[in-house]
Amino acid sequence: MPAPNSRDELVFLPLGGSGEIGMNFNAYGFGPPSRRQWIIVDCGVLFGREAATPGVDVIMPDIRYLAERSQDILGIIATHAHEDHIGAIAPLWPMLKCPVYATPFTAALIEGKLEEAGLLGRVKLKTVPVGGSLTLGPFAMDFISITHSILEPNLIAIRTPLGLIAHTGDWKIDPEPMLGEETDTARIRALGDEGVLALVCDSTNALQSGHSGSEANVRTSLTDLVGTLKGRVAVTAFASNVARLTTVAHAAKTHGRKLALVGRSMHKIVQAARDTGYLKDFPATLDAAEAAELPARKVLYLCTGSQGEPRAALARIAEGNHPHVALGKGDAVIFSSRIIPGNEIPIFELHNKLCALGVEVLTEQDHFVHVSGHPARDELAQMYAWTRPRIAVPVHGELRHMAEHARLAKSLQVPEALVPANGQLYRLAPGPAELIDEVPSGRMHLDGRVLVAEGEGLTKSRRAMAYAGLIAITLIVDGKGRVAADPAILTEGIPEPVEEAIFNAVDETTRRHPKGDPDALAEAVRRSARRAANEAWGKKPVTRVTIVEI
Amino acid sequence: MPAPNSRDELVFLPLGGSGEIGMNFNAYGFGPPSRRQWIIVDCGVLFGREAATPGVDVIMPDIRYLAERSQDILGIIATHAHEDHIGAIAPLWPMLKCPVYATPFTAALIEGKLEEAGLLGRVKLKTVPVGGSLTLGPFAMDFISITHSILEPNLIAIRTPLGLIAHTGDWKIDPEPMLGEETDTARIRALGDEGVLALVCDSTNALQSGHSGSEANVRTSLTDLVGTLKGRVAVTAFASNVARLTTVAHAAKTHGRKLALVGRSMHKIVQAARDTGYLKDFPATLDAAEAAELPARKVLYLCTGSQGEPRAALARIAEGNHPHVALGKGDAVIFSSRIIPGNEIPIFELHNKLCALGVEVLTEQDHFVHVSGHPARDELAQMYAWTRPRIAVPVHGELRHMAEHARLAKSLQVPEALVPANGQLYRLAPGPAELIDEVPSGRMHLDGRVLVAEGEGLTKSRRAMAYAGLIAITLIVDGKGRVAADPAILTEGIPEPVEEAIFNAVDETTRRHPKGDPDALAEAVRRSARRAANEAWGKKPVTRVTIVEI
Repeated sequence: MPAPNSRDELVFLPLGGSGEIGMNFNAYGFGPPSRRQWIIVDCGVLFGREAATPGVDVIMPDIRYLAERSQDILGIIATHAHEDHIGAIAPLWPMLKCPVYATPFTAALIEGKLEEAGLLGRVKLKTVPVGGSLTLGPFAMDFISITHSILEPNLIAIRTPLGLIAHTGDWKIDPEPMLGEETDTARIRALGDEGVLALVCDSTNALQSGHSGSEANVRTSLTDLVGTLKGRVAVTAFASNVARLTTVAHAAKTHGRKLALVGRSMHKIVQAARDTGYLKDFPATLDAAEAAELPARKVLYLCTGSQGEPRAALARIAEGNHPHVALGKGDAVIFSSRIIPGNEIPIFELHNKLCALGVEVLTEQDHFVHVSGHPARDELAQMYAWTRPRIAVPVHGELRHMAEHARLAKSLQVPEALVPANGQLYRLAPGPAELIDEVPSGRMHLDGRVLVAEGEGLTKSRRAMAYAGLIAITLIVDGKGRVAADPAILTEGIPEPVEEAIFNAVDETTRRHPKGDPDALAEAVRRSARRAANEAWGKKPVTRVTIVEI
Repeated sequence: MPAPNSRDELVFLPLGGSGEIGMNFNAYGFGPPSRRQWIIVDCGVLFGREAATPGVDVIMPDIRYLAERSQDILGIIATHAHEDHIGAIAPLWPMLKCPVYATPFTAALIEGKLEEAGLLGRVKLKTVPVGGSLTLGPFAMDFISITHSILEPNLIAIRTPLGLIAHTGDWKIDPEPMLGEETDTARIRALGDEGVLALVCDSTNALQSGHSGSEANVRTSLTDLVGTLKGRVAVTAFASNVARLTTVAHAAKTHGRKLALVGRSMHKIVQAARDTGYLKDFPATLDAAEAAELPARKVLYLCTGSQGEPRAALARIAEGNHPHVALGKGDAVIFSSRIIPGNEIPIFELHNKLCALGVEVLTEQDHFVHVSGHPARDELAQMYAWTRPRIAVPVHGELRHMAEHARLAKSLQVPEALVPANGQLYRLAPGPAELIDEVPSGRMHLDGRVLVAEGEGLTKSRRAMAYAGLIAITLIVDGKGRVAADPAILTEGIPEPVEEAIFNAVDETTRRHPKGDPDALAEAVRRSARRAANEAWGKKPVTRVTIVEI
């Protein structure tokens, strides 16, 4: 490591993931304030929700601050392949135009996404070996294996002339992950011995006491559970949890059942894992049509759709309209997954539909069929004991998680603990950590296929229509501004008696209004329509008036 | 009891609550098929959700089948005063026009609702004493005290010439409910000895093993917890859980804190409880303005808003804009409540806002500060042991709860177990229980102030606008059907580049289209606008075309 220049600074800038679980985007800058070089660690999406962001599938950070500095961005490093860490690479890359670095399995999945986006030839996507290293300008990085609910999660040790950052990515301490590398505790401890300036760390489960548990225990328990079932069995799990897929395969094999993969992302992930040298012992799988030929007790379906996603395999099975999988009385579905907060209603709806078919529904509420991929408090304490950082930087959480994580770090004698917000630029060194700037930040909605700033208010306007409908009035005036025809009134989403009140109010206002001032008439009509709706209904529709001159 | 006529039947008809937790509405009919007399047990609402039913605060059962038979309805009996059991009495009463019966506390709350609806003089509201009886035609009813999370929950024992029904309402077995009556186990056991035809029973927690726990234990634990806190303390709980309010008052008193009630429904419920003779030991409470004068460690606020309701007291405190309550660093909020599924996101948002103020958030996740009001499986088993019914009739649950409840009943040797759906008319006697009819049923939305059938599709249409916005096009044609002016195009909730594509498509279609057939032009314009939006955006807006002839 070269000695730092006296004006060099090491800075940290989260643009996503600080305040939400999802949309992870962290940048590190090094150099004098006038000319920093940047690396980006993770570039993920957050999933939209119908209530808050109707019509928006995914949400991304607003990265215009870095986009304006794209010539100084040395690369994007992906810690692992979850959507909330890599899902925004393809959509945002055209604004960043920098190389992308990841370990083989992660790189394989990124490659698939770049291909779908038509960017494959343009993006320099470089594979870093598992346990490998990468140097970009002043940043010398080691990829240190850790455990999580996906293959190849990495803690990135980032050495700079002003100190060493340990960026955990998503992690847990699973002593028996059942697939992929174990946590490289020797190298993590060595970081602590070397001296860690800042630990930038997953906060997801900072409110959970104890330990997250091991995949090995899920394997035992899930295998036992499948052994008690006599009919068809379907297990739904996150496709990206490849160790879980092997657990399910183990349960199938133990009880003489053939495994059938159902759902596009199951096939995609299994292929990516095979392509990168994993799953050598994974059994040959049937397709769903073949599996339908087998006796009920000889088949185990591994399905997408654990979160109640309406287009996923399990939703179609529950609706009774999957082309190849039919479940009924005597069959069982095991949800080997947790409920992501906010998905309760669609998941319970799925349970209800399965019950209506006579299918038994087994979940982590009643059986030990899932462990979290994130560190509970005992694991966080272990990580702080290993790394002994000067600064704790909670990321990857809502404020309630990050605040509790910071409190925990303080209780573990970490001298400084930040609770950064998206857009806050912190100097980590030299000197004590300090907030030195707030840069533009926010959210971009992928609204249909169009990237739209949240601030433009499209979803707000659509929510207003969802709440109280819409009135569109067209006034037709002649060249002198006099009403030349009856106004055209369209209402949408408004009850019939309220419509009538609106029609009457518009008619009356049009008739009464002095001639010759169309703008004043438009405003009077707009107000009277809203007032009439409010009086008849107690709600004010979105009301728009257009003037057409003939 | 008179002997039944040979053509008499006893029937059961749920119109709400079978398939959802909420909107409870059960009817019992007696007599020959041609002339049944009816009683209704409970008449409640379900709360709307922005995603599924935007703009709808409450949902009620479609009761047109009974409304057409209103002259044969002998009365509405309310088991207890929760909204999902009494909330629809006032809005639906004009269709039923029958007397309403309830114990004093429940009647006081119903009275308040009738007053708000301007129905007070019209409705015959009769108070039944706690533990009292009521006979309506062939139905001889006993109100038997039980425990739940509200004052005066009743199991209704309904004797008919064809057998005895035990209708539990909502219940649990709390050996120390801390306020109100204990479970009258002697009378419930006596029903079993007398012989119960059908147990119509709460299914809410049929998936929960064990026992729901006692309010007495919450009292100890919550009091200890408050003792550890040094700043201001706010506790949020369901206002209707009056025993919990006394628990909170006990915690305040134990630690020398004055109690302040914050939120309209807290005041309303406390008043109703005092008016009906409860809360004799409840301390004098301060109003929030007075409490603001006290030192931080001398005050305890009891607030509405545990479910993240945006207009409730706690939401306003968290936003920092409550007129009299300001919380900050060193203060704590205790959520002495559970999260009702579907409310996770607003509740966590509330936690985040409190964290941003520096307030510590304590919940049932990390402290023992709440017990459920519904029976877990051990309690259900106890109830079946006491009553030993011939038929188990799970109600008050989603299908997943009711199906599991029926399975449990079967495992307890109950000979028959139904899983009724709303609108299914079951004959309970004579003979084995049998589905004999399916009557019109469904949901009514209180949309603003207008009652609308769900089937009319208003919320569906509004959700479509929430997803993809709206295009309203007005075509102006002359008497011969020729385009007389440029079309007026309004778009709402659609991104700018998509708007442009729509404008161009409409222009082009209008120009190209042969003159003289406005309807064909309207359809062509509608299609081209939607197609253009879909090509540019990947979504198809709601598109309406109006023709104005000048």
